[in-house]
Amino acid sequence: MSRFFSSVFSALTPYVPGEQPKNGGFIKLNTNESPFPPSKRAIEAGAKALERLNLYSDPSCSALKKAASKLYGVPEECIICSNGSDEVLSWAFAAFCEEGRPGIFPDVTYGFYPVFAAQNRVPFTEVPLLPDLSMDIRTMAETDGTLFIANPNAPTGIALSPDVIETLVRERTERIVVIDEAYVDFGALSVVPLVEKYDNLLVTQTFSKSRSMAGARLGFGFASPALINDLETIRCSINPYNVGSVAQAMGIGALEDNDYMLDNCREICENRAYTVSALKALGFELTDSKANFVFARHPDAGGEELYRKLREKGILVRHFSRPERIKDYNRITVGSIDEMKALVKALAEVL
Amino acid sequence: MSRFFSSVFSALTPYVPGEQPKNGGFIKLNTNESPFPPSKRAIEAGAKALERLNLYSDPSCSALKKAASKLYGVPEECIICSNGSDEVLSWAFAAFCEEGRPGIFPDVTYGFYPVFAAQNRVPFTEVPLLPDLSMDIRTMAETDGTLFIANPNAPTGIALSPDVIETLVRERTERIVVIDEAYVDFGALSVVPLVEKYDNLLVTQTFSKSRSMAGARLGFGFASPALINDLETIRCSINPYNVGSVAQAMGIGALEDNDYMLDNCREICENRAYTVSALKALGFELTDSKANFVFARHPDAGGEELYRKLREKGILVRHFSRPERIKDYNRITVGSIDEMKALVKALAEVL
Repeated sequence: MSRFFSSVFSALTPYVPGEQPKNGGFIKLNTNESPFPPSKRAIEAGAKALERLNLYSDPSCSALKKAASKLYGVPEECIICSNGSDEVLSWAFAAFCEEGRPGIFPDVTYGFYPVFAAQNRVPFTEVPLLPDLSMDIRTMAETDGTLFIANPNAPTGIALSPDVIETLVRERTERIVVIDEAYVDFGALSVVPLVEKYDNLLVTQTFSKSRSMAGARLGFGFASPALINDLETIRCSINPYNVGSVAQAMGIGALEDNDYMLDNCREICENRAYTVSALKALGFELTDSKANFVFARHPDAGGEELYRKLREKGILVRHFSRPERIKDYNRITVGSIDEMKALVKALAEVL
Repeated sequence: MSRFFSSVFSALTPYVPGEQPKNGGFIKLNTNESPFPPSKRAIEAGAKALERLNLYSDPSCSALKKAASKLYGVPEECIICSNGSDEVLSWAFAAFCEEGRPGIFPDVTYGFYPVFAAQNRVPFTEVPLLPDLSMDIRTMAETDGTLFIANPNAPTGIALSPDVIETLVRERTERIVVIDEAYVDFGALSVVPLVEKYDNLLVTQTFSKSRSMAGARLGFGFASPALINDLETIRCSINPYNVGSVAQAMGIGALEDNDYMLDNCREICENRAYTVSALKALGFELTDSKANFVFARHPDAGGEELYRKLREKGILVRHFSRPERIKDYNRITVGSIDEMKALVKALAEVL
């Protein structure tokens, strides 16, 4: 920290993303990327955009919103586009939390939520997961503040049904519920259609996982026009050109090639089923993941120990040392079937 | 504003960027874009990156920083990369301003500065330009707080010499000076080399203007390692993957093809000289712009009137109705020679 750094942020601890090794050679199962390239249609659209990059991108992302509106069946004014969904989540903490209105989220969830709260200088409350690592929905429902729920949750992969979420939204119309659907395409059900029914629901999605575009940086928020307008006020006070022209063009291409995404997700689900069976056969205990990762622990090996041994064998997985109750687990991305076979082989060797 | 919007931001008024018309047909001289496409080398590098976008971008932008370090002659740890330079400017308001330490900037400058201050909830003080529209450097030097100086300034285009800036930085080492060099390549001199000498200087640059990459979204901050570290804390608490892989690859390509940028800037300077002469011949008064725009008023025509008449003729320029003292001016991007000839012809007709 320099002698000039604002006292407001002196205690701020940034989020640490999963390792991105500079040199190849690793089987990368640590950041929940897709093993498949982006849609050909997205790549073609991106390539076309390159020549015209001397002009600014459309700050309102009109064509992209139109494509999203068509696919998701919600009006364009219910959509906001962001440079990855992290950005729209950060704006939501700014716009919808304040003193007396904390962000509420589970103690085990996407590790960025407490950092977003801290950077936006708003309070937050963590609600412990139940012993089976599922969310304590009753306590969350009764806690005052803005709910942030990853569905499926990370790193457990456990999903909530749309009914449970709708009840949370309907029961307390005086507060906002944010549903982070980063992993929804791998087996959970989206509540995007509900944003037209409730003015207190915000749903975020990303192109980084199911749409194979982590490096393109593109995310969405879906909500009532009034909430979108609030988020636009924040967005346009930081970076109105937050989404570049290549990402906008590729986003349209990807949405128009939705079957490619669906096929890829089907394959990931098959690979997940294989991985779950194989890991169970090795003695692992796993949560019921509906995401493109599994969350597994072994009764005879520590989480960090397994992480290290896999790393030595050239396989990167994600280990969280905190909170204490998940330190025996590793979060393992579901990649291609060859990658998963290599993982199972390596685990069999190190156990 | 929704009933949920944070009271903290209820008075926040976003920055309004120049119009980006959806339909072509306009000669666009309103957002200071380059009339030239990005470097071929940048385009090739971007095209190569498209296939691998299923993987996250490098959150530390290592290769891009290395290329920038080589070209600008400052160590990699003195560089931060951002999704356009607006982002790093916003982080600077967050990191280096607070209660009792306002942002200080001229009353006529980049209109985003007061919005950055408001969004980051820090105070700011505007120092009026002198009657000739140059900066009141003595008053700025004597005012307590963090200085934000666009050099050349916008929308006047008037540049400060590196000596004047170095004196500001050296005279008061207890405060930070931020130099926004968005337009520096069109005839001003950069103070990037000074960041190794002073720990209280931050310099920002953008790829949006001289490097023809406005739609790719890429900017830099240059400063001492301690200041860069503070900015990294903010960046990684909002969006560690803020710069996508295509922008990183294109940025490297553009830096390695620096002569292309220099040639383009030379041509813009020639076109600016033509425009200044032609506008003077039509009776315009102009500031001494060292940027890729001119700032001009006519004794016989109001600024908004000229803006409207040019728009009717298919030419977009930028008019600012506030502050009052610049309402007779228009800021006109210097584009290709054909565009400037069309501008001069249109002005001759409407006057």
